[in-house]
Amino acid sequence: IQAADRPLLCEVVAELHEADLGDLIEALAPEDRVALVEITGTDFDFSALNEVDETVREEILEELEPETVAEGVRELESDDAVELLESLDEEDQEQILEKLPPAEREDIERSLLYPENSAGRRMQTEFISVPPSWTVGQAIDYLSETPDLPERFYEIYVVDADRHWLGAVSLDVLLRARRLVPITEVIEEDRRRISALEDQEEVARMFGKYNLVAAPVVDTTDRLVGVITIDDVVDVIEEEADEDLKALGGVTHPEELSDTVWTIARGRFNWLLVNLATAFLASSVLGLFEGQLEKMVALAVLAPIVASQGGNAATQTMTVAVRALATRELGSYNALRVVLRETMVGLVNGIAFAVITGIAAVAWFKIPGLGMVIGLAIICNLVAGALGGILIPMVLERVRADPAVASGTFVTTVTDVVGFFSFLGIATLWFGLK
Amino acid sequence: IQAADRPLLCEVVAELHEADLGDLIEALAPEDRVALVEITGTDFDFSALNEVDETVREEILEELEPETVAEGVRELESDDAVELLESLDEEDQEQILEKLPPAEREDIERSLLYPENSAGRRMQTEFISVPPSWTVGQAIDYLSETPDLPERFYEIYVVDADRHWLGAVSLDVLLRARRLVPITEVIEEDRRRISALEDQEEVARMFGKYNLVAAPVVDTTDRLVGVITIDDVVDVIEEEADEDLKALGGVTHPEELSDTVWTIARGRFNWLLVNLATAFLASSVLGLFEGQLEKMVALAVLAPIVASQGGNAATQTMTVAVRALATRELGSYNALRVVLRETMVGLVNGIAFAVITGIAAVAWFKIPGLGMVIGLAIICNLVAGALGGILIPMVLERVRADPAVASGTFVTTVTDVVGFFSFLGIATLWFGLK
Repeated sequence: IQAADRPLLCEVVAELHEADLGDLIEALAPEDRVALVEITGTDFDFSALNEVDETVREEILEELEPETVAEGVRELESDDAVELLESLDEEDQEQILEKLPPAEREDIERSLLYPENSAGRRMQTEFISVPPSWTVGQAIDYLSETPDLPERFYEIYVVDADRHWLGAVSLDVLLRARRLVPITEVIEEDRRRISALEDQEEVARMFGKYNLVAAPVVDTTDRLVGVITIDDVVDVIEEEADEDLKALGGVTHPEELSDTVWTIARGRFNWLLVNLATAFLASSVLGLFEGQLEKMVALAVLAPIVASQGGNAATQTMTVAVRALATRELGSYNALRVVLRETMVGLVNGIAFAVITGIAAVAWFKIPGLGMVIGLAIICNLVAGALGGILIPMVLERVRADPAVASGTFVTTVTDVVGFFSFLGIATLWFGLK
Repeated sequence: IQAADRPLLCEVVAELHEADLGDLIEALAPEDRVALVEITGTDFDFSALNEVDETVREEILEELEPETVAEGVRELESDDAVELLESLDEEDQEQILEKLPPAEREDIERSLLYPENSAGRRMQTEFISVPPSWTVGQAIDYLSETPDLPERFYEIYVVDADRHWLGAVSLDVLLRARRLVPITEVIEEDRRRISALEDQEEVARMFGKYNLVAAPVVDTTDRLVGVITIDDVVDVIEEEADEDLKALGGVTHPEELSDTVWTIARGRFNWLLVNLATAFLASSVLGLFEGQLEKMVALAVLAPIVASQGGNAATQTMTVAVRALATRELGSYNALRVVLRETMVGLVNGIAFAVITGIAAVAWFKIPGLGMVIGLAIICNLVAGALGGILIPMVLERVRADPAVASGTFVTTVTDVVGFFSFLGIATLWFGLK
């Protein structure tokens, strides 16, 4: 790139798949990234920019001239164009949109009006629609004679003169049918359609459940406005899984490998602050029993075990619950059964670990009775953990908070507090301390 | 179902999508499930059984006569048939396979020979291949004249007389081309092919990266043996995300909502046992400082805060690391940079929380110097947590263990041990205890 060997670079860039080109860009130094796009000009496929981290994408787009970006955007399908532009602020968007031809500009602007993460944002507005009066043969001929078709398509749609939905025909169905058959005879009329306002998570669930590769998007009056294809949905599925997983691990702020230390540290700070508050709350329970801890230091040594064992059992339950809520496997119809089952699991493992921990504690500290105390506390805490692990995500889901984000803190707070309180409380009674 | 109104049931079952039929089956009482399949007979779509939990599927298949199952399996695409049969033990498989026509039986047996979770297991062996001598028009006519085509297809393949791979043609490309164009002119020769032995996770990554809807599967001699379609891949992506998420939450044994209390409790027991061992290890560090704890009980009250704060910061780092390893965003080429960055993030947040916790600790216990001690310990533990959170998953990946499964325990052990040891060690030195 430094040598700026233009023909060679153009050839390399033109041959690469957009995904590989994206990888290449990420591997380059920041100043070389912009240079690469500028040097290769029209050979550069702008959809590669959708394959790189958002921070990198914004940096490149801000460095480039609006003219260059506008030219690149023109070559994209509308959904890729929207994805590229939605990461920019409104002023930059405006500058680029101004330089586009009116028709494309209007399509993109209309998509940008839909709320973030809605089907309207993800759909492409290029699709093939035919009138209901045609035969299969006419549709096939139309496809081979029309030069300006969308880049990839898996089905065609039948609409009336007002673009109202009539049905869909998959390409394999079209190819299977005889030429003279009217198109209305092969359409699927009851195909699932997506409202443009639908949340993308719901869309992904529908694709997964019904094994779709493409689905029509309609507006509130059932007029066809776009199509969502499986490749966009795969991205959504991965994004959502990613978000849930990171949220459960306490990473609630989106971050990318290319972010700076400062951005990442700040993003993780809030969650750690919440955790600190709950840790102080749990320790204040220990503080209530200062006298007992002084008299029998074994209690201070063993208390974290009770809390940790409860916390881990509760996290298991919570993980299963969060996942089942996300996939809609857990709903009000089976809630009671699942809550009872988790409580029983907590009780069963509670008894098992009560015995193990009790024996270990007596062997260690040679204090008779300590085994019984820690055992009872473990049973209490595992049952409490099970209840917390299942009920907290369910309540959060009810009040429309994201169970994946908030459950972790609440759940371990419950097990820390119950763990410390039950262990030291039972010890106080048993040994007649204080 | 009790009333066994056969015609009504058949109608309902025939009209439902397989996914909805699966939901219906799960909602039924166990004895009604088998009855439903038996009563509706050939109207029952066996692919619905792939939509239900594995436990439920096994129960139903074991109750049904092998003849009934064989008849249902005949109607399925080979990949669905394999999915259905692979959950059974070999003897039951054999009984059902015996009752299938030789051609179908051979296809399924060949797929079952491939290792579990390989592309060969997931592929369907029904696909459309045409000779290279044909024109586009011939291929289109062939599709409309052949009655027994696969249920869904998105592309056709060109192979030589020995079934060796020559190229692929998407249906939209086929439809765009003029009838007289030779098929060899529109094929994609360099399409990515999948080896039948490839792991399904790798297949999913390829589909996601290159936005595929179908991909040809070849054997070691580059002969076309099957095709994998996106709907199977979406299932794989969801399964893998599910596994990682549950593993991070300490649920390493696959479980389903329909499992019994006993199965679930046993499945989660092992991980809790490992955790108990590490909790005792951490507590033994507290035990080393028994004398100090007795002299200054504030240390016993505050120690869990140091451990918890480190554990949470480490879990954040670990979650990001596990995810980045799974998506191959983190590799040897950027490992050093990411490790340094995470360490810096640990240091920055360590300093921030050292100040906050230090002030809070002094305010609570009114012991001058306690703030400095807990602050230093928090900095140590957050840096140790960052290093553990990033290095442990990377090492596990190196030795080919699954980072998602094992990281959690190791990482929190590190932060518990370092947290307790640094806090009590620094306190011992600072206050001249013991």
